[in-house]
Amino acid sequence: MLIVMEHGATPEQIETVVQAVRRLGLAPQPIPGENRVAIGVLGNQGYVADEPFRDLPGIQELIHVTKPYKLVSRDFHPGESVIAVGTARVGWGLPPVAIAGPCTVESREQVRATAKAVKAAGAGILRGGAFKPRTGPHSFQGLGYEGLDYLAEAGREVGLPIVTEVMRIDQLERVAAVADCLQIGARNMQNFDLLKEVGRVGKPVVLKRGVSATLEEFLAAAEYIVIEGNPNVILCERGIRTFERALRNTLDLAVVPYLRQVTHLPVVVDPSHALGRRDLVIPMSKAAIVVGAAGVMVEVHPDPARALCDGPQSLDLAGFAQLMAELRAARA
Amino acid sequence: MLIVMEHGATPEQIETVVQAVRRLGLAPQPIPGENRVAIGVLGNQGYVADEPFRDLPGIQELIHVTKPYKLVSRDFHPGESVIAVGTARVGWGLPPVAIAGPCTVESREQVRATAKAVKAAGAGILRGGAFKPRTGPHSFQGLGYEGLDYLAEAGREVGLPIVTEVMRIDQLERVAAVADCLQIGARNMQNFDLLKEVGRVGKPVVLKRGVSATLEEFLAAAEYIVIEGNPNVILCERGIRTFERALRNTLDLAVVPYLRQVTHLPVVVDPSHALGRRDLVIPMSKAAIVVGAAGVMVEVHPDPARALCDGPQSLDLAGFAQLMAELRAARA
Amino acid sequence: MLIVMEHGATPEQIETVVQAVRRLGLAPQPIPGENRVAIGVLGNQGYVADEPFRDLPGIQELIHVTKPYKLVSRDFHPGESVIAVGTARVGWGLPPVAIAGPCTVESREQVRATAKAVKAAGAGILRGGAFKPRTGPHSFQGLGYEGLDYLAEAGREVGLPIVTEVMRIDQLERVAAVADCLQIGARNMQNFDLLKEVGRVGKPVVLKRGVSATLEEFLAAAEYIVIEGNPNVILCERGIRTFERALRNTLDLAVVPYLRQVTHLPVVVDPSHALGRRDLVIPMSKAAIVVGAAGVMVEVHPDPARALCDGPQSLDLAGFAQLMAELRAARA
Amino acid sequence: MLIVMEHGATPEQIETVVQAVRRLGLAPQPIPGENRVAIGVLGNQGYVADEPFRDLPGIQELIHVTKPYKLVSRDFHPGESVIAVGTARVGWGLPPVAIAGPCTVESREQVRATAKAVKAAGAGILRGGAFKPRTGPHSFQGLGYEGLDYLAEAGREVGLPIVTEVMRIDQLERVAAVADCLQIGARNMQNFDLLKEVGRVGKPVVLKRGVSATLEEFLAAAEYIVIEGNPNVILCERGIRTFERALRNTLDLAVVPYLRQVTHLPVVVDPSHALGRRDLVIPMSKAAIVVGAAGVMVEVHPDPARALCDGPQSLDLAGFAQLMAELRAARA
Repeated sequence: MLIVMEHGATPEQIETVVQAVRRLGLAPQPIPGENRVAIGVLGNQGYVADEPFRDLPGIQELIHVTKPYKLVSRDFHPGESVIAVGTARVGWGLPPVAIAGPCTVESREQVRATAKAVKAAGAGILRGGAFKPRTGPHSFQGLGYEGLDYLAEAGREVGLPIVTEVMRIDQLERVAAVADCLQIGARNMQNFDLLKEVGRVGKPVVLKRGVSATLEEFLAAAEYIVIEGNPNVILCERGIRTFERALRNTLDLAVVPYLRQVTHLPVVVDPSHALGRRDLVIPMSKAAIVVGAAGVMVEVHPDPARALCDGPQSLDLAGFAQLMAELRAARA
Repeated sequence: MLIVMEHGATPEQIETVVQAVRRLGLAPQPIPGENRVAIGVLGNQGYVADEPFRDLPGIQELIHVTKPYKLVSRDFHPGESVIAVGTARVGWGLPPVAIAGPCTVESREQVRATAKAVKAAGAGILRGGAFKPRTGPHSFQGLGYEGLDYLAEAGREVGLPIVTEVMRIDQLERVAAVADCLQIGARNMQNFDLLKEVGRVGKPVVLKRGVSATLEEFLAAAEYIVIEGNPNVILCERGIRTFERALRNTLDLAVVPYLRQVTHLPVVVDPSHALGRRDLVIPMSKAAIVVGAAGVMVEVHPDPARALCDGPQSLDLAGFAQLMAELRAARA
Repeated sequence: MLIVMEHGATPEQIETVVQAVRRLGLAPQPIPGENRVAIGVLGNQGYVADEPFRDLPGIQELIHVTKPYKLVSRDFHPGESVIAVGTARVGWGLPPVAIAGPCTVESREQVRATAKAVKAAGAGILRGGAFKPRTGPHSFQGLGYEGLDYLAEAGREVGLPIVTEVMRIDQLERVAAVADCLQIGARNMQNFDLLKEVGRVGKPVVLKRGVSATLEEFLAAAEYIVIEGNPNVILCERGIRTFERALRNTLDLAVVPYLRQVTHLPVVVDPSHALGRRDLVIPMSKAAIVVGAAGVMVEVHPDPARALCDGPQSLDLAGFAQLMAELRAARA
Repeated sequence: MLIVMEHGATPEQIETVVQAVRRLGLAPQPIPGENRVAIGVLGNQGYVADEPFRDLPGIQELIHVTKPYKLVSRDFHPGESVIAVGTARVGWGLPPVAIAGPCTVESREQVRATAKAVKAAGAGILRGGAFKPRTGPHSFQGLGYEGLDYLAEAGREVGLPIVTEVMRIDQLERVAAVADCLQIGARNMQNFDLLKEVGRVGKPVVLKRGVSATLEEFLAAAEYIVIEGNPNVILCERGIRTFERALRNTLDLAVVPYLRQVTHLPVVVDPSHALGRRDLVIPMSKAAIVVGAAGVMVEVHPDPARALCDGPQSLDLAGFAQLMAELRAARA
């Protein structure tokens, strides 16, 4: 940490800061400048909480150099993690995995038809929502455990591992018993108790970035899971909220190559939720693969016009087959 | 809802949309324009999900007129709600209530000293965190139930009702047994299962706005609580996340008079979290009261320089007394 | 400046950075830490451009301590500037000034009627747009010099100094000949050539904050004017663009007390443009004064329902009189 | 336009709105709903200014269906424009063009060496800044006309058309005499007078998106140029400002396929300014081409470590050659 003193800070104020650093067992190193003094804080093993300093008189700014995460960073784990989800392998540099399926499980037939088609087209993981977070309580909230059973059955039938969202702690045991991978939605990215409990379950996790989460917060959220002993976290970029509302969200694709430098955890991209429009899913999926994403997560529905949720952004079965063909072409 | 057709939409495409509206039991009303046709959708009692329409060919845009909330709106509840929190009354037009106390309960002595001082200065409700949401797992996470006991004891001792944050469903019963009011933090504003369960507990709730929540999402989150039978929701503006990072967040004070027109639920303002700096708490609290807020929520600590959390934004005991004096002057 | 090296930076990489600092005539001071080395850069008189360093291998981050402005900061000008606009005085701590008038000058009668009324109600400066920046070319663009003449005439008639927006350099001479104060609109806040030329004109300037300008950029824009020899700059907060679109912009009121610490230039607040709704102008104006603003800038029109521009946010003449009465009450 | 009345609007209020619409020569069409009445406004040929309506009592919301631009939209120009810049052709579906060169022209040698290398590697247009917009006045502001001469000379020597930024109207004639294409920077995207004057010059224009410009504003800015008789506008996405500051800006790549549906003008992508880091330029350029961009605009410098401006985001000559090789591979 660097403590920047004000222009007119007195020698007494500087000394007080120096003593406060020493009281924490750390080593202060004053750096006298032309306009102001700065004090480097040395000797810390991790993130230094700034509370004991920030409140002292004469301080202009506190600058953190160490990050609020450690286990998920490349600094402490230089290699690249490969996450096994049933038969699928998700990792930087591996062939990208398509995670596909309906936004919401609506019926046994719907998810079964989708599963068959996405398996045939080359998907690696089947997705489907049993519990649905919706902005208002008046919208359809999902089929619950009945939907989970349909999803699990469809996955077994076609031989695909499944991923589904969990929203509350008391669902974890029952969902983990049948799902190959748990999903934490964007709205729950900082539901820290849920993260901790998911970290205690021995299942891989897809962690979606909150719509206004900085990358630092995103990685710190992953750290909550990893620190509980579960290193199998797949990060998912799904669009951020900006001033621009022509599309649902702004897909922040540059985070893929950026995060590859920062973390060993793989990143997949969900263009369906980011953009809210089917016609943009194929080009943006290709772009995701081109910039190195470990996979894409897309919504597929046998009849999007009748989907109970997110129809406009869902590919139909032929559309998904086309996506997979284009992705194969893009990689070749 | 209004369905705007594309410039070159064919009569068949228009007819298909008209039929889709009819299938939902609603009344389509085409509005032919010079450049394009629009179709009004009439007869709905609430929010119309747009999935069945959006996917049809020839549609340019779907415009919602009805909102995703109802019970919290003035349209359906023209009066102004008054929420009783123990002996305190929070409502539009009532004398503003100060909710004050430490960010985090650190010890019996700390919360007791704070409680005595804020009571003496005129606070109406004592706040204090027992369970703390922190960006990363390496930061102090609160004293838990021990902290809750200290808070409850301090409240009883000075005769102030207490409010404290709940983060997980299995805490609800035990916290509700001693707290007069539950708080939902900004990060959990869309933790819908927690909202539902809080709605089933017979305790008032302070619901904090998410850092990137639109007002529509904020009110829809409150609707989750109210629809479960708990009408006692206090909304709390605590700053939003914008491109500007000179201060921690951007305090969106205009929402106070705006929300007063839209909802019957009272709004309080938390300048401590919004701004992250003690010196701005007093002016912005005064501004909040001037624009009609039903109260302010501020962090107070007997020794902010040694606070374990949010020290730089905490008032000390004398600072809180000064705030209360200035608020009284501003109202007079 | 502080140069933070990567975790695995080699001694050679560190030495290369040290040499690069020396080549600029500055003094490098390495700060060895447990996890990484940082290098302080000392001896600079102003902002250090980071280009010569950033590109060297082994660097993780460059942290600026010095700001891109100097003349407008309190560090170099500890007092508080008072800007004279004709007979009006605008400054921190002085009685707040109301700058009032129509968005657009529409006719001699309209601006004359407005001028009379705002003068009677206590306004200190008359505003009115002759040249109007509009998002699209199909909207009304103002009356031009004819409008300027009407505005000047009305100001003289009632004895109020006038302020009006300039949009292009070749307007400056003619506008400055009759206006007491020039306004730079939000869209031109970083039109640096216009700023420079305005700096060479001996007239006070109202500089509006760009809708996505950081405070650092805002102050650096003011520096462009001041460095040309014109110290008479009034800063104007008029709302920023955020994800929230329920209101036109988000009025960032906390910048008023914040900027008061950072700069000696006074800040006024324009709630009309920020909020886009007349009913919020009075409460937010009062809040602006309560937090210390040197004035407010509000749109007033004799018949807002027929205004050619910004009608919904314009006060009528009685509304402005009420605003002034409430501001007097708030200050008393 | 659609006028949505409040829940409790009276018949008189509705009638007043109806009459106001008729006074404009337009046709009102009331749409009675269960909860409220809406009034469609028919008969308009273009954008309906909402001022005459918005101010009437009983109105809840005004919803625009027509956009503030027309000439740049696909509705009125269904084909795809091809813009000729000297020997280069820029258009949707054509082979993508690389616009390359230094951020700033620093010397005759620097721009000549760059020109030779980018020509050899396959660039189609040479870029270089003679006049530089900088956040603060203390930074290097470019070589001016001397730099322009060096750029023009280098372009002639290697046989590449050149593009350079114009910042003020009185530069236009002299710059247009030697440049093949004019650039309007992001900060000047809403400098409407500059746009108009550029529209009167018979030269193609690269128009950069403002950092917080909506796509509607972006297209309306292009309309300012086109309406003056200059249809040769190339749009340039160069990153938007969001809450995320890990990278300089957020590159909004999904606007490429989106804008292709909305406008006939081609879109190029500038990843250098968007991201601020050389190592992300190649992957994001490839992604831009994959989603259909008509070209990329990248900064190239013979010795980025000594660049006076934007060194960290500049490719060196070998890096640019690699970029071109990867782009060719991506397209094959």
